[in-house]
Amino acid sequence: MATPVKVYGPPFSTAVSRVLACLLEKDVPFQLVPISMAKGEQKKPDYLKLQPFGQVPAFQDDEITLFESRAICRYIAEKYQNKGTIGLFGTNPLVKASIDQWLEAESQSFNPPSSILTFQLFFAPRMKMKQDEALIKQNESKLVKVLNVYEKRLGVTRYLAGDEFTLADLSHLPNTQYLVEKTNRAELFKSRKNVGRWWEEISTRPSWKKVVEMQNA
Amino acid sequence: MATPVKVYGPPFSTAVSRVLACLLEKDVPFQLVPISMAKGEQKKPDYLKLQPFGQVPAFQDDEITLFESRAICRYIAEKYQNKGTIGLFGTNPLVKASIDQWLEAESQSFNPPSSILTFQLFFAPRMKMKQDEALIKQNESKLVKVLNVYEKRLGVTRYLAGDEFTLADLSHLPNTQYLVEKTNRAELFKSRKNVGRWWEEISTRPSWKKVVEMQNA
Repeated sequence: MATPVKVYGPPFSTAVSRVLACLLEKDVPFQLVPISMAKGEQKKPDYLKLQPFGQVPAFQDDEITLFESRAICRYIAEKYQNKGTIGLFGTNPLVKASIDQWLEAESQSFNPPSSILTFQLFFAPRMKMKQDEALIKQNESKLVKVLNVYEKRLGVTRYLAGDEFTLADLSHLPNTQYLVEKTNRAELFKSRKNVGRWWEEISTRPSWKKVVEMQNA
Repeated sequence: MATPVKVYGPPFSTAVSRVLACLLEKDVPFQLVPISMAKGEQKKPDYLKLQPFGQVPAFQDDEITLFESRAICRYIAEKYQNKGTIGLFGTNPLVKASIDQWLEAESQSFNPPSSILTFQLFFAPRMKMKQDEALIKQNESKLVKVLNVYEKRLGVTRYLAGDEFTLADLSHLPNTQYLVEKTNRAELFKSRKNVGRWWEEISTRPSWKKVVEMQNA
């Protein structure tokens, strides 16, 4: 490939790291273009041409510019289906539907409470912001309900969409990494037998370890 | 088709009506299976086998059981790609990526504030619940930002993902219907030239008019 694809945004962003994990799984070379959120660069006119909502990441390859991390991951997994990890987005329509279903469960049920907890428990203290205890409690309770569903599911299948690692699992890595490694809520995951086993499997993949290295660099 | 597909849940649910709109666009016969949320039937063990989170809708055809409305819509649009409205989920990878991007924008940026406003402004008063004014104000401000992005986009293309009606537009119908027709916030949409034109086009499609009839039956 002559020109590597471009990812705009910092690796500490959960949405950026979701895309990086996908590119590394698919063995697709990429260039990371720094966007300083501290300087508000994601709200500058030039960047808004790429990402009209003023969020990270934005993504470019020779044919297309995209935003929204899960849409970018779907695109990468389809375009490079024969590179890197095969089957990341399924190899037949029924498997693909199951992946889509669990990817939506992540987006609609897991992401809202886990993003709020990641922000409140990890980022807020670092930014010298006051934590909202009621919000933490409410979202921890929501997350527990989701993890109880996952615990049951992961007692039946090795990964969420079936017996292969897919985009549905990958999409959970960014928020879970913060909650398990950077807050005192690791037990939410580790105390559940199947969820704990699943987290151990997905978080030790070379692709994700490389993303965490980029976050810590 | 011998056995029609089954949709579990009431048409007043925004997630159920999203799936119904998709089935009607694709001209796929379906059977609606009533689930009484007033009686808590979505939390009963038999239903939880179909939808482990205890939410509506669940969906079944002869090959698969699915949950999550946007995943169900993707599945229907792919499986029945040659029936009904062609191109609902695109006919080539670049168009599909654009549809995915705007479908994610709906799911991540439009849906959270518009769902909260629909609940607070329409359902809460009917359920004799107190409205949360601070929450309404905060989410109205979020929705305005999203609609400003849409206004710009819809000045360039007829629909969100391009010049054809797709799943990305369809997915906006349920919440927008409530906000425009059942609350005093219609102007959020109608006062914006391009958003107003787009809403007029998508909400007068025969498929959506049929869903609204089912909601009012």
